[in-house]
Amino acid sequence: MTLETQLVQADENLDAALDRLFALLRIESISTDPAYADQCVIAADWLVSELQSLGFTASRRDTPGHPMVVAHSGGTGRKKLFYGHYDVQPVDPLDLWDRPPFDPIIEDTPKGKVIRARGASDDKGQLMTFIEACRAIKDVTGELPGNITILFEGEEESGSPSLIPFLKDNIEELKAEFALVCDTGLWNADTPAISTMLRGMVAEDFTIKAADMDLHSGMYGGAAINPIRVLTKILGGLHDENGRVTLKNFYDGVLDLTPEMKAAWESLNFDGDAFLKGAGLSVPAGETDYSILEQLWSRPTCDINGISGGYTGEGFKTVLPSEAYAKVSFRLVGTQDPEAISTNFRQFIRDNLPKDCEVTFHSEDRAGATTLPVDAPEFAQARKALSAEWPNEAIFGGCGGSIPIVGHFQEILGMDSVLIGFGLEDDLIHSPNEKYDLRSFHKGIRSWVRVLDALNG
Amino acid sequence: MTLETQLVQADENLDAALDRLFALLRIESISTDPAYADQCVIAADWLVSELQSLGFTASRRDTPGHPMVVAHSGGTGRKKLFYGHYDVQPVDPLDLWDRPPFDPIIEDTPKGKVIRARGASDDKGQLMTFIEACRAIKDVTGELPGNITILFEGEEESGSPSLIPFLKDNIEELKAEFALVCDTGLWNADTPAISTMLRGMVAEDFTIKAADMDLHSGMYGGAAINPIRVLTKILGGLHDENGRVTLKNFYDGVLDLTPEMKAAWESLNFDGDAFLKGAGLSVPAGETDYSILEQLWSRPTCDINGISGGYTGEGFKTVLPSEAYAKVSFRLVGTQDPEAISTNFRQFIRDNLPKDCEVTFHSEDRAGATTLPVDAPEFAQARKALSAEWPNEAIFGGCGGSIPIVGHFQEILGMDSVLIGFGLEDDLIHSPNEKYDLRSFHKGIRSWVRVLDALNG
Repeated sequence: MTLETQLVQADENLDAALDRLFALLRIESISTDPAYADQCVIAADWLVSELQSLGFTASRRDTPGHPMVVAHSGGTGRKKLFYGHYDVQPVDPLDLWDRPPFDPIIEDTPKGKVIRARGASDDKGQLMTFIEACRAIKDVTGELPGNITILFEGEEESGSPSLIPFLKDNIEELKAEFALVCDTGLWNADTPAISTMLRGMVAEDFTIKAADMDLHSGMYGGAAINPIRVLTKILGGLHDENGRVTLKNFYDGVLDLTPEMKAAWESLNFDGDAFLKGAGLSVPAGETDYSILEQLWSRPTCDINGISGGYTGEGFKTVLPSEAYAKVSFRLVGTQDPEAISTNFRQFIRDNLPKDCEVTFHSEDRAGATTLPVDAPEFAQARKALSAEWPNEAIFGGCGGSIPIVGHFQEILGMDSVLIGFGLEDDLIHSPNEKYDLRSFHKGIRSWVRVLDALNG
Repeated sequence: MTLETQLVQADENLDAALDRLFALLRIESISTDPAYADQCVIAADWLVSELQSLGFTASRRDTPGHPMVVAHSGGTGRKKLFYGHYDVQPVDPLDLWDRPPFDPIIEDTPKGKVIRARGASDDKGQLMTFIEACRAIKDVTGELPGNITILFEGEEESGSPSLIPFLKDNIEELKAEFALVCDTGLWNADTPAISTMLRGMVAEDFTIKAADMDLHSGMYGGAAINPIRVLTKILGGLHDENGRVTLKNFYDGVLDLTPEMKAAWESLNFDGDAFLKGAGLSVPAGETDYSILEQLWSRPTCDINGISGGYTGEGFKTVLPSEAYAKVSFRLVGTQDPEAISTNFRQFIRDNLPKDCEVTFHSEDRAGATTLPVDAPEFAQARKALSAEWPNEAIFGGCGGSIPIVGHFQEILGMDSVLIGFGLEDDLIHSPNEKYDLRSFHKGIRSWVRVLDALNG
C-alpha cells in the first residue's frame, strides 16, 4: 500500500524531477579537461545542496582532483552505499551534435521521448533516478529510506585518480553491507538487468618520437624514419587475422564461461545482427570463435581509441613529422592481470621500435575484471523488485564496460556491488547527441522505489 | 667589366633588397587554407607592383584558385621563362615556432646570419634573388636583362590546380627556349647545384568509415570494427621489412643509375651519417640495398604525412570512432606512372578493407619524375657562371623533392628547365622556424647576375 503510494508520488513528481535533472545537465562538468574544473565544483555543490534539501547530511569533500560528494540518510537497518558520478565525457567533435550538448531538452523521437544532453544517460540521469526515488519515499513516509550513504564521484570519466585514496581515508564512513551502483544499462527497453560480470580496463597513451624536428619529405623522404609509419606498423600488429590480440600472455586468466552461464546467455536470444545493425555494421570484429555476446561480455579486447600525427588540415603538406601519438585501451575479463598487460604492451612497443625512435608513455588507467556473487540475498531481492516494474523479468547479465569502482569497493571496503541501471545501447554515451529515454528516467525512479522497498523489507 | 659593376651594385642594394623581401614575407600567403585566400591576392599584387616599378610589363592573372603573376621584360635574344611561387606552407604547429612566422628578422646564428620567417627559403627568398638580380643589372645598364618572361604561381604548395589550364591557355605568351626555376637548393653551403633529376609525386588523402556514429568501447568493444585499427593495419602493410613498398607494380619504371651517374654521385663524398645526424637520426629508413643518397635522389618513397582518428585530447575517452583519416604521399622516379600508382594504391586500400568499412578518397596530386638534358648549352653556361660565384664548382645533382612544374613545362610548353636554387638542407622549409641564409640571399642575387650574363652572352 505504501509502496503503491510512493510510486504514484514518483509519477506526480516527474515534471519537477526533470527540472532538477536539467539544472544538473546544464553544468559542464567534463572531468578530463582541466578547463572545466570549476564546473565540476559547481556540479558537486549543486548535488550537496539538493541532498541537504532532501534531509541528507551532505557535504562536498575536496580532493587533489575534482571533489566527491558524500551524504548520509541517518536511518537504521542494513547499510547501503549508493554510487554514481556527476562528471561527463568531453563533447568533441562538437560539430556532430545537433544542438548544444549542455542545453538539455525533451525530444520526440520515433521510439518515444528522450532527454538529449551530454550526461543525460552517463551518469547524471542515472544518479538522479536514485535521488528522486528517495524524494518520493520521503514525500510519502516523511523519512528517507533506511540507512543509506551516498557517494558521488567527479572523476569517473578521467581515471578516478582521487578515488582510491579517498576510499582508504574514509573506510568506516563508507563501508556498507553492499553497494548500489547506477551506471549500467537495461538489457533491452522492456527488460531490466543486474550486471554480474564486468570487464576491467588498461588504458595507455604514448608518443613515438623520431627526428628532432618535422622534416620535409622532399628533402629527407626515403632516408628519414617516419614515426607514423612506425606507429601504424606496431598498432597494425596488435591483432592477428582471427581478431586475437597478439600480446604475450594476453589471454592468461581469461576463463571460459561456465556451462550454466553459457546456457543462461543463450536463453537471452540476443540478436547480434540487430545489435550491430543499430550501429550500421554487419560483421562482428572480435575473435572469430566466439559469439557476439561473448565478444562483448566475456572476451578481452584491445582498441585504438585515438591516433594523431603529421599534418591533417586542408590540402597537402608533405611533412615527415617528428612525432606520432596514440591512445590504446584494453578491456579485461576473468583474472587477467592489468599490471602484466600494461608491462607486456609497453614491452611490445619497445621491442618493435627502430633504433632512432623513442617512446614516451604519458598516463595509465588500470583495473581488473570483476565477477559478482549472484547468490547473495540482495541480488535476488533487487531482481524481484525490478521484475515487478518492467514488462519482462530482470536478468543477470555481463557488461562490456569497465566499472572500476566495483573492484575498489571489493578491495578497499570489502563489499560487493549490485549494479542496476537504465541506459540503453542506443544512448550514444561518450558520443555526440547522447540521450536518456524519458521512460528510463521515469521507470528508473520507480525501479529504485521498488528496490529500496525490497531491500529494506 | 659591366658584370663586375653589376655585382658591386647588387652588394650595395642588399639592405634595400632585404626590406623588399621582408615586405613580401609579412604577407600570410598560405595557399592550402582558404582562410588565407585574400593574402594570396595581396602577395600577387605586391609582386605585380614591384615588377612594374622595375620596368616589367606585369599583371595579376586571376584563376579559379589563387592568381598567377606574369611579367615581360620586353627585351630581345633567347627567350627565358623564370618561375617561382609566392605561396607558402601552413605554419602549424604554431607553438613550435620561436617567433611569429610572418614577422621576419635577421638572426645571428653560430653558422652566420639567417632570415627567419615562413617562406624565407621556400620560395619567397629564392624568387626575390632573381628580381633583385634584374634590378642590379637595370641599375647599371639602364635596361632589364634580355628577353625574360616571369611566371609566379600562388598554388605550388597546394597541388597547383590552376596551373595546367593556365599554361594551356597561354602557351604562346609563356613558351620560351628554356625555363629558369628557382625552388631548389645548394649542394652544400659552398657548392652550388643544378638539379637534373626530380622525383615525381602522388599524394592521396582518404577517410575510412565504419559504424554510423562513434561508439562506446564499453558497450561495443570487441564486436564493432574500429576504423583506426583497420587504417593502421593497412598502412602498416605498405612497407616490408627491407623498407620496400609493397604495392603491386610499384617499382615498374624505376631505373638503375647509369654507371656514370653513380660514379659522379660517389665522387660527391656525401656524408649520409652527418645528413641524418642533422635531424637527430642515425639509421637510414629506406630500402636497405641502397645508399642514403640513392634513397634520397633516385629511389621512390611512400610516406604517411598525416593521420587522425578518435579522441586525442587530454585524458581517456574509450571511444570507438566511426572514422579514421590519413594523408599518404609517394615520391616517384624514372618512368613510374603516377596514374597507375594512384590506382594501385586505392585498390590496395579497398582490397584490405573489411566488409563493414568504406573508403572515400578526397583529393589527389600527381606528377611523374623528370630527367633533364644536361648536355644542352644552357646547362653548361649556368654551371660555369655559378662556379665563378661560389667557392666550389657547381654540380649536377638529383633532387629528392618534387617540382611538378618541370614536367608541365616539358609537356605543355615543350621546354626544359634549368633548376638553380640556394636553399640549404637545414632551412626547415615546411617546418617551424623556416630560415634562409643571408648568404644564400646575397650570393643568390649575385649568382643570377652572373647566370643572366652568361646566358645572354
